[in-house]
Amino acid sequence: MQALVRILGVDPGSRFTGWGVIESDGMECRYVDSGCIALARGKPMAERLAQIFTELGDIARNERIDEAAIETVFMNKNAQSALKLGQARGAALCALIMAGVSEPAEYSPRRVKQAVCGYGAAGKDQVSAMVARLLDHDGEFTEDEADGLALGICHAHHRRMAQAAKLALSQEEEAVS
Amino acid sequence: MQALVRILGVDPGSRFTGWGVIESDGMECRYVDSGCIALARGKPMAERLAQIFTELGDIARNERIDEAAIETVFMNKNAQSALKLGQARGAALCALIMAGVSEPAEYSPRRVKQAVCGYGAAGKDQVSAMVARLLDHDGEFTEDEADGLALGICHAHHRRMAQAAKLALSQEEEAVS
Repeated sequence: MQALVRILGVDPGSRFTGWGVIESDGMECRYVDSGCIALARGKPMAERLAQIFTELGDIARNERIDEAAIETVFMNKNAQSALKLGQARGAALCALIMAGVSEPAEYSPRRVKQAVCGYGAAGKDQVSAMVARLLDHDGEFTEDEADGLALGICHAHHRRMAQAAKLALSQEEEAVS
Repeated sequence: MQALVRILGVDPGSRFTGWGVIESDGMECRYVDSGCIALARGKPMAERLAQIFTELGDIARNERIDEAAIETVFMNKNAQSALKLGQARGAALCALIMAGVSEPAEYSPRRVKQAVCGYGAAGKDQVSAMVARLLDHDGEFTEDEADGLALGICHAHHRRMAQAAKLALSQEEEAVS
């Protein structure tokens, strides 16, 4: 049994940045908090990026997170939207590092769906439903919240696999020596 | 005669972020400082973005700047490089806002060249040479430094034009009333 780990999952976007915090004991995930940073429309872009930076930094500090995961970018986009998304991502990554997260993990949307739903082509509704089920949560999550939480679950899953592999390796080494 | 204004020009990039600080009295520009933030290769991307954020924020605070200008993006790039550039830009814009710059100005490369060289299709060498001449600077600037300084000069130029237009308008109104 591992110590409890608090994981923040972030899905940055140029209009909405979804986030979710879960706690994992290495076996199960527990819901802690989630939400969506909605960028003020009509404000200059630099101010909107600073909003992501400030709010996400506050969340990371207030929720006392240990690790964080962020979504990699699906690259079938045009250069203009890739630039906008890049700016939001830059603000989010700066916020995480400045809040003390040493190395945010990155997962592709496909891998997140695989971890949460069991297959990488799952739809948005399926992700939301599975996130609520895995976290034993009654209410409904918004799409953005669910994406943030799914990233957290994916990271917990990845940590579990990595530790199981490490354990297996050390047992093998012990058996050999 | 205007009060002295300190302007920071920033040209963010995924590998090098050039910057330059100038001082303008509304007529002439004076060189203050310039440099280039070279991102540590081999480090995780999030850490490199935090490096832009931290170093640019320190520069903005230490140089006691009043205003800042940043380059808009030339969009004839593929989505992958637009994303990388967007991330660097997001980190730079967050740094400026968090350092107290209320609204960084944005200028296209074409407009910067126009302001510094008199025509928008000027080459890199011409920009460097004209920046050194306008700032009455003996040594040579690196390309990145020159880009940062050119942005500062462009912004000073823009302020001067805007104030001249405002003055002309108020004089007209006075003559009419």
